[in-house]
Amino acid sequence: MDQLNMLREINATSLFNKWLGLEIDSASEGEVQLSLAWRDELGQYSGFLHAAIIGGLIDTACGFAAATVAGPKVLASTFTVNCLRPAVGEKFIAKGLVIKAGKNQIFTSCDLFAINENKEKLVANGQTILTIAS
Amino acid sequence: MDQLNMLREINATSLFNKWLGLEIDSASEGEVQLSLAWRDELGQYSGFLHAAIIGGLIDTACGFAAATVAGPKVLASTFTVNCLRPAVGEKFIAKGLVIKAGKNQIFTSCDLFAINENKEKLVANGQTILTIAS
Amino acid sequence: MDQLNMLREINATSLFNKWLGLEIDSASEGEVQLSLAWRDELGQYSGFLHAAIIGGLIDTACGFAAATVAGPKVLASTFTVNCLRPAVGEKFIAKGLVIKAGKNQIFTSCDLFAINENKEKLVANGQTILTIAS
Amino acid sequence: MDQLNMLREINATSLFNKWLGLEIDSASEGEVQLSLAWRDELGQYSGFLHAAIIGGLIDTACGFAAATVAGPKVLASTFTVNCLRPAVGEKFIAKGLVIKAGKNQIFTSCDLFAINENKEKLVANGQTILTIAS
Repeated sequence: MDQLNMLREINATSLFNKWLGLEIDSASEGEVQLSLAWRDELGQYSGFLHAAIIGGLIDTACGFAAATVAGPKVLASTFTVNCLRPAVGEKFIAKGLVIKAGKNQIFTSCDLFAINENKEKLVANGQTILTIAS
Repeated sequence: MDQLNMLREINATSLFNKWLGLEIDSASEGEVQLSLAWRDELGQYSGFLHAAIIGGLIDTACGFAAATVAGPKVLASTFTVNCLRPAVGEKFIAKGLVIKAGKNQIFTSCDLFAINENKEKLVANGQTILTIAS
Repeated sequence: MDQLNMLREINATSLFNKWLGLEIDSASEGEVQLSLAWRDELGQYSGFLHAAIIGGLIDTACGFAAATVAGPKVLASTFTVNCLRPAVGEKFIAKGLVIKAGKNQIFTSCDLFAINENKEKLVANGQTILTIAS
Repeated sequence: MDQLNMLREINATSLFNKWLGLEIDSASEGEVQLSLAWRDELGQYSGFLHAAIIGGLIDTACGFAAATVAGPKVLASTFTVNCLRPAVGEKFIAKGLVIKAGKNQIFTSCDLFAINENKEKLVANGQTILTIAS
């Protein structure tokens, strides 16, 4: 099975990802792109994308990028999220990247973009460290 | 208006918090406690609490703790989440705490507990830095 | 050999710690306290304790706390430092604590205090995740 | 005064940077490169570059990058360091970059490379959030 299908199978087993409507646009060795359409239910008190969803997109893109190099048994130890600009958009795109894959742990990073009228704007970034379950 | 009611009003304006069913148990100067009942829809691929929800509980508890000292106009700059143990529980409790409130920014931290058969277990912790909107 | 002596031996093998004059005040299961006397050479451009030293104290206290539970073969994967107040003092004390020790990784935290006229003030805090070398 | 000279003046006022022998190779709008020659005194217990120096290089490169867009009155709120590989080299190069400069705070990141026989290897990365002193 190729990486994109592996990730789509994992994605389908998460009921929260299903509720979100999280899509996997592309996946290759060490790299994935996820997308999520905006709807009001995803908002915090000002109507911007909720920090839970920002963090969830970043953590998931990082985890899926890690899975492309180490298989599905990766677990996040820690993740950090920087809220750079108000996360307002018709759609959000998370680009996850493996920075360093070791034997026991994988360092990843992610940029999160808001899409408005077909223009991308970087609204958050973050990083996740994952361990490989033995 | 007291702090608990202020936070409940803010909480009610977030459609995502409403969907979650996030409750504010208590609030005082620099300290809040939130709780969330488990349901399957909150799960990641193994059926544990999704990292998005873990991060969202930590970020929200930190933000609400900050609001008890600086009012509702606080914005998270960055948050960090440590996944200490599998987040499995009938219920989750997030205890947010202000560590240092300055003129322009507020440092906070949060412990997240899973509740099983009335026993608390620490499953994650984290920290958030917030700025005060001028 | 007890934990305090083990840590003092490790400490003596780091030439940087020797240059710093880093002292280990106490050590027990999952807990250590380090101290460092101020001197001008440790300053950044405003004459406060340099971020390198703040981070080094936090990372070292965390690493030594981890070593009390897992032995000397622990390696930091990541550390985070929050600069809460200007780090100005006659002396600095770092209190490192193990939050969760797993099979493969150890989560720790540290509070850093400045001492002035025998009064402690919290000036920074942080956390480190360490892996156990196999 | 151009940015490189401004940073060299700041650098000269930090006694710790002077002791380190930290050099500023280049600076432009939102970007700096620092370098540091290895010597034994910079080592931790295995003889690798000490985490204090790794963190100090990252925090300083981030702070100097921020100063190129906001002037010298920037202060680190928080920094995060990821230790990707053993930091062993004849020389180390830190490349700091501004990710987003706002009115009140600046988000930056840094890659740290070890140089061995003229080859660069990424050994650590990190990020710093700075506030602009008013």
